[in-house]
Amino acid sequence: MRPFVAELDELQNKILEMGGLVETAIHESIRGLAERSDAPISNIWRIEERINQLDIEVDGFALRMIALHQPVAKDLRFLTATLKMNSDLERMGDLAVNIAQRVLSLLGKPVVKPVVDIPEMSKIVESMVRRSLDALVQRDEAMARSVLLADDEVDDMKRAVYQDLMTMVEQGQANAGAAFDLIFIAHNLERIADHATNVAEDVLFMIKGVDIRHHHMA
Amino acid sequence: MRPFVAELDELQNKILEMGGLVETAIHESIRGLAERSDAPISNIWRIEERINQLDIEVDGFALRMIALHQPVAKDLRFLTATLKMNSDLERMGDLAVNIAQRVLSLLGKPVVKPVVDIPEMSKIVESMVRRSLDALVQRDEAMARSVLLADDEVDDMKRAVYQDLMTMVEQGQANAGAAFDLIFIAHNLERIADHATNVAEDVLFMIKGVDIRHHHMA
Repeated sequence: MRPFVAELDELQNKILEMGGLVETAIHESIRGLAERSDAPISNIWRIEERINQLDIEVDGFALRMIALHQPVAKDLRFLTATLKMNSDLERMGDLAVNIAQRVLSLLGKPVVKPVVDIPEMSKIVESMVRRSLDALVQRDEAMARSVLLADDEVDDMKRAVYQDLMTMVEQGQANAGAAFDLIFIAHNLERIADHATNVAEDVLFMIKGVDIRHHHMA
Repeated sequence: MRPFVAELDELQNKILEMGGLVETAIHESIRGLAERSDAPISNIWRIEERINQLDIEVDGFALRMIALHQPVAKDLRFLTATLKMNSDLERMGDLAVNIAQRVLSLLGKPVVKPVVDIPEMSKIVESMVRRSLDALVQRDEAMARSVLLADDEVDDMKRAVYQDLMTMVEQGQANAGAAFDLIFIAHNLERIADHATNVAEDVLFMIKGVDIRHHHMA
C-alpha cells in the first residue's frame, strides 16, 4: 500500500486539476463573449467531460481512503472537505458550459453592452476559484477569507448588470433576447462565485475545525 | 455511547426534517405567486434559518460518526451521502428564498401569464424533493430513478417558460420586469430539481455502491 500522505497529495492534485479546468472553462467562455467568436468555446465540452471524470475519480478515491485508513481529525476533515469541493467544482464546470451556451446564443443577436464589464466580472470570479484552491494548498486562512469578501462584490456586479439591462429593455434600447442572455451569463458567474465561496468555507473548516457557514456575514 | 444504529436514524431524521422544510419553503413561495400575496412568504426566512442550522448540525453529526465509529461499506456510503445531500438541501433552501424574493418583486408589477403553469411546474419539483428522500428512507432504487426522469420534464418546462415569455416581451405583450422575474422563478425551480436529482443519485450510489452520475442520460 502506498503511504497515506502520498495518497493525500494525489487527491489534492486531482482537485487542483479540476480547479484549473474550471478556470479555463470560464475564461474561454467569456473570451468567446468578448471576441464574439465561437472558436474559444469549442473545447468547453471536452473540458467538462474531463471535469466530470475527475468528479467520479475524486469521490471514489476519497471514500476508499476514508474506509482504508480510517483517518481522524485534520486528515478526516481534509477528506470530507474534498468530497464537498469536488461537488462544487463539478457544478462550476456545468455553469461554465451554461455560459458557453449563452454566448453561442448571443452571437446571432444584436450587440448589447451593459455598464458593468462582464469580462471584468469574470476575472474576479476566476481569481476567486484560483484563490480558494491556493488557500487549500497553502492552508491559508487569510486567502480563504479574501474569497468570501470578493463574493459580495460579485453579487453587486450581478445586480448592476440586471438593473442596467432591464432598464435598457424597458426603454427599447436593447434587444430583449440579448439582454436575457447577458443577465444569465452574469447570473451564472455569480453562481460560480458562490461555489468558490463554498470551497473557501470548506478550507476554513478544514484548517480550523470550526464551521463558519451562515456566520461569516454576521 | 448510544448505539450506532440509533445515531444513523437520528441523522436520517435530520435530513428528512430538512427535506420537509425545503418542500414547505418552495410550496409557500409559489403559493405567494399563485395568490399574488406576500402572506404565504412571511415564514420563508425563518424556515431557511432552521435549514441552515440543520445543515451545520448534520455535517458535525456525520463527521463525528465517521471519526468515532470508523464505519465501512454501506454505513460509510450512507454517511458520506448524508454530507452531500445536506449541501444539496441547504442550496434548495437558498433557492426557495430566491423564488420568494422574485415573487415579492412581482407583486408590484403587471400580471404576466406564460403558457406553462408555474405552480404545476412547482408541484413536480416538490414531488421530486419528496421522492428523493422517500427513496433514501426506503432504499428504493426505482423511486430514485423516477426522480432522474422527472428532471428532464422540468428542464423542458423551464425552456418553454423562457421561450414563451421572451416572445411576449419582444412583441410588447408583457412587461419586461415581470417576465424576467417569472423566468428566474422557473430557472430556480429547475435548479431545485437539479439538486433533488443529485440527492437521488446519492441514494442510488448509497444503495448500489456504483456511481451513476454523468451516465444516467447516456
